[in-house]
Amino acid sequence: MIVMLKQTFKFKSVPTDIYFNQSFSQLKKIIDIKQTVVITDENVFASHQQKFKHYNTIVLKAGEAYKTQATIDSVIEQLINFNADRKTFLLGVGGGVVLDITGFVASIYMRGIAVGFVPTTLLSLVDASIGGKNGINFGHAKNMVGSFKQPQFIFHDISFLTSLHRTEWQQGFAEIIKHACIADEKLFNQLQQHNIDYYKKNKKELLQLIQQNVTIKANIVLKDEHEKSVRKKLNFGHTIGHAIEMQYEVTHGHAVAIGITYANEIAEKLLEFKQKEIVTKLLEQYELPTYSSFNKNKIISLIKMDKKKEQQIIHFILLQKIGKAIIQPISFPTLEQYLKTL
Amino acid sequence: MIVMLKQTFKFKSVPTDIYFNQSFSQLKKIIDIKQTVVITDENVFASHQQKFKHYNTIVLKAGEAYKTQATIDSVIEQLINFNADRKTFLLGVGGGVVLDITGFVASIYMRGIAVGFVPTTLLSLVDASIGGKNGINFGHAKNMVGSFKQPQFIFHDISFLTSLHRTEWQQGFAEIIKHACIADEKLFNQLQQHNIDYYKKNKKELLQLIQQNVTIKANIVLKDEHEKSVRKKLNFGHTIGHAIEMQYEVTHGHAVAIGITYANEIAEKLLEFKQKEIVTKLLEQYELPTYSSFNKNKIISLIKMDKKKEQQIIHFILLQKIGKAIIQPISFPTLEQYLKTL
Repeated sequence: MIVMLKQTFKFKSVPTDIYFNQSFSQLKKIIDIKQTVVITDENVFASHQQKFKHYNTIVLKAGEAYKTQATIDSVIEQLINFNADRKTFLLGVGGGVVLDITGFVASIYMRGIAVGFVPTTLLSLVDASIGGKNGINFGHAKNMVGSFKQPQFIFHDISFLTSLHRTEWQQGFAEIIKHACIADEKLFNQLQQHNIDYYKKNKKELLQLIQQNVTIKANIVLKDEHEKSVRKKLNFGHTIGHAIEMQYEVTHGHAVAIGITYANEIAEKLLEFKQKEIVTKLLEQYELPTYSSFNKNKIISLIKMDKKKEQQIIHFILLQKIGKAIIQPISFPTLEQYLKTL
Repeated sequence: MIVMLKQTFKFKSVPTDIYFNQSFSQLKKIIDIKQTVVITDENVFASHQQKFKHYNTIVLKAGEAYKTQATIDSVIEQLINFNADRKTFLLGVGGGVVLDITGFVASIYMRGIAVGFVPTTLLSLVDASIGGKNGINFGHAKNMVGSFKQPQFIFHDISFLTSLHRTEWQQGFAEIIKHACIADEKLFNQLQQHNIDYYKKNKKELLQLIQQNVTIKANIVLKDEHEKSVRKKLNFGHTIGHAIEMQYEVTHGHAVAIGITYANEIAEKLLEFKQKEIVTKLLEQYELPTYSSFNKNKIISLIKMDKKKEQQIIHFILLQKIGKAIIQPISFPTLEQYLKTL
């Protein structure tokens, strides 16, 4: 497999160009720096300050706790101070939280301005940067407010990964394993042969892995941009995962790994899914949590606030086998029963 | 001219059905009341309480001063309390402010839910309800944040007009005169022959007038939904108008009438427009303000925050003659010079 340099995905609203394996300094070839405002967070800014010296930059506090309306208000105020207008280009440089904030602001500032993303974590490279979904949390309700807004481009510079913590590598692999589970058995087998250190050491293999996962996600999004059908499958592990993330001090990727584990327990009961141990083993191989104790009543009440619910039913994503997921409507009483027997 | 009962405008995102001359009680034929949440304001609610008794209803404080993020936050909280989900239908019942709030919330709640409008003022019947633009104010910057979101339908019940204040009739006619100025000389001539009391007394003529204006606005929006070109013409009178509205205690329609008057002064200087007195006379005939004293420096600094600006230029809408408007780029120094000589 050869790593491509650029690939265009023709989403309905805006086509998104994905530039693989680039260097940040080359961005100036595709954007006008004077018309650009960068949004990043304090961690990325501290580690890569020299990269931003020619840009108007808004620096956010880091972390999911700041994915709130208060942050949006502050960004808008700073944009007004920068005299940003309808021709201003917003560039999000960061992980999922930064890209969510940037995408959402770009969709509402002056009723929408153009946006591009530079994902700086493995998770955002393979997942959060692709597909145009953004959101902010509202109390305990995750991504309750947001929009669909495709970026004009996604620009990869994996030199940002050198400043990642171990836990961020783990989180990226939670979404990579998710992709393998729902759509690509071959990728699952490939992952079984390696581990985090292998991909950290082998740049070519890492670039290929990133591109494989971009392709899986982008092709699903292309089929169903507004998540009416097949795109829901990308929520595998995210229903219980989001609830755990909002309730406990757990990162997104770790919560998803726990969510995958329990979704497989339900799939075993409901669909006679037989491979739960293999998936659990792979999650552990990539240093991810699996079985965890949590307050089931609290988690159920949070799931009832999930966007995926409709009336008294939630669309749960379950595996029939590794590489094949289905969308299974489950009523809340049934879900409660399943969770309580686990 | 026969008043139609229903007309469909095929906007790109969602086609909008406009139902003319209906009765609110018939709404239940096109929506599922149990899945609907109504958003209205305390004035409409107080005058028409019995209409809402079968609906889950969110009642806003009335007025432009509440077109803010704080109101959006409060609506979202109430939607969560109503257990609103992706299948919930939002119904805005009110004037421009209520419809702006409802449209914006519908575009961001759970990344977008369906919305319909029941405009209850003349201004919102002929203007604000059509075209999908919404927005909230940010400090002194009008509609700084918002989106484009077409309603599934606009449902007219002119019995709501019985509770309108005189000033709200005047405001509606400001936008009607605007439509005539930019696009329809015949409508301008027709307006010259009548006044507010005539239209208040003659229901059939009022219904025809509403339909004429809906058609003018919807046809312009159809050509340019996202305001990249011809839709800008609908901003006639709104550049100076918005600035005056944000700076002084003036209603939207009255500010637009003042904005039209001064835009015509500039058109006289710049384009040798020769009909400014005729327009001023018509505005006065419909009890609207025209020449007013205002702090020119403050107004200019507010215009510099206008969304219509790009870098150092603002796209001003000027009349060549009654019925024909053009989009004229004017630099800020030039604009300042013009305003100061007035």
